Amino acid sequence: MKHFDSDSFSDLPSRFRANLINSCSGYRSSNLLATSNKKGESNLAIFNSVVHIGSNPPMLGFIMRPLTVRRDTYSNFKSTGYFTVNQVSKDNFKKAHQTAAKYDEGISEFTITGLSEQYLDGFKAPYVKESAIKIGCTYVNEYEIKENGCLLIIGKIQHLYLPEELIHKDGWVQLDKAATVASIGLDGYALPKVLDRLSYAKPDQETNSLLDGV
Amino acid sequence: MKHFDSDSFSDLPSRFRANLINSCSGYRSSNLLATSNKKGESNLAIFNSVVHIGSNPPMLGFIMRPLTVRRDTYSNFKSTGYFTVNQVSKDNFKKAHQTAAKYDEGISEFTITGLSEQYLDGFKAPYVKESAIKIGCTYVNEYEIKENGCLLIIGKIQHLYLPEELIHKDGWVQLDKAATVASIGLDGYALPKVLDRLSYAKPDQETNSLLDGV
Repeated sequence: MKHFDSDSFSDLPSRFRANLINSCSGYRSSNLLATSNKKGESNLAIFNSVVHIGSNPPMLGFIMRPLTVRRDTYSNFKSTGYFTVNQVSKDNFKKAHQTAAKYDEGISEFTITGLSEQYLDGFKAPYVKESAIKIGCTYVNEYEIKENGCLLIIGKIQHLYLPEELIHKDGWVQLDKAATVASIGLDGYALPKVLDRLSYAKPDQETNSLLDGV
Repeated sequence: MKHFDSDSFSDLPSRFRANLINSCSGYRSSNLLATSNKKGESNLAIFNSVVHIGSNPPMLGFIMRPLTVRRDTYSNFKSTGYFTVNQVSKDNFKKAHQTAAKYDEGISEFTITGLSEQYLDGFKAPYVKESAIKIGCTYVNEYEIKENGCLLIIGKIQHLYLPEELIHKDGWVQLDKAATVASIGLDGYALPKVLDRLSYAKPDQETNSLLDGV
């Protein structure tokens, strides 16, 4: 068993520490955030920090690194009020990863990667056509995490598109049927397969499986 | 393709909406948070919202639902300043799920589930012995998400324990070697397998694999 403590964290080379700390809290979501600016120029960027915030009203959040460099995603949704969240899958994770490169302003990562812009139901941000699960959000609020200058961005879910066969009778979505990936740290991609789904836990009662043959 | 918009979200039965919205933003981490109160009574609870916040200093965060009911985890780390984050694996996800049941105060979910308390290096919160990856944190801050009353809790990582063979040369941790699970929604568990790890993305350059045979 390897043990790191706060002193040994400080002594680690910064890249090693970043890889270690980014990986150790578990699997992360993997999504492409798409926006456009007021001129209609699109932007696409991979984020592995999208989290559930609430279901009534439906909201999600994600962590944005400090605004010390140009952040097109941020300036776009701040000026238009819109962004989309598009799940990364086994088939497009390499293209999705490439959106993290620092392209000049005005160059769209859609063009670079060959992923397709899709405008749906008049929504003012593009979706990624190749993503099976797509979410259209309006910007709601942001909270600065004073400890390191990161921002927690809150979006309200206005639209959700997904293949009907992924949705179970009670609303649960079986992500592995869409080959959605999970990420590890900054650059790792993994493909999950459902093990089970368990009934609501109650004291003095064993849970049972909610899946009848995945 | 199924389409939900804000009107149809409001019309959905609340359980269906909770399942749908909780699943659609992608895979989530799966961790057991362990605390003890000032009398030394332990508590164990599953959380699927632990996220990376920063690596210098090393910090993580998680979402806590509104404090409208008794929340032992919260009152414990607020009074002691300590909590631990312990990864859930294929071998213990059923026990981990059971910790979500509402037990009376003073009943430890360690006792109920048979998971073992482990105190390491004088840290004032117990770890889960069965978890391969364990993180000891001090409570740092909390941010109220005004839109629904949830809290983003920030912890500073003071200790990290993990099997040495999981750590790659540059600090990246291969979670599938520990059979760490990812979760879907409120009650789904999936086992990921690493697909690849990609080099730092640069314009006009193809990324290559950082794995030499997983």
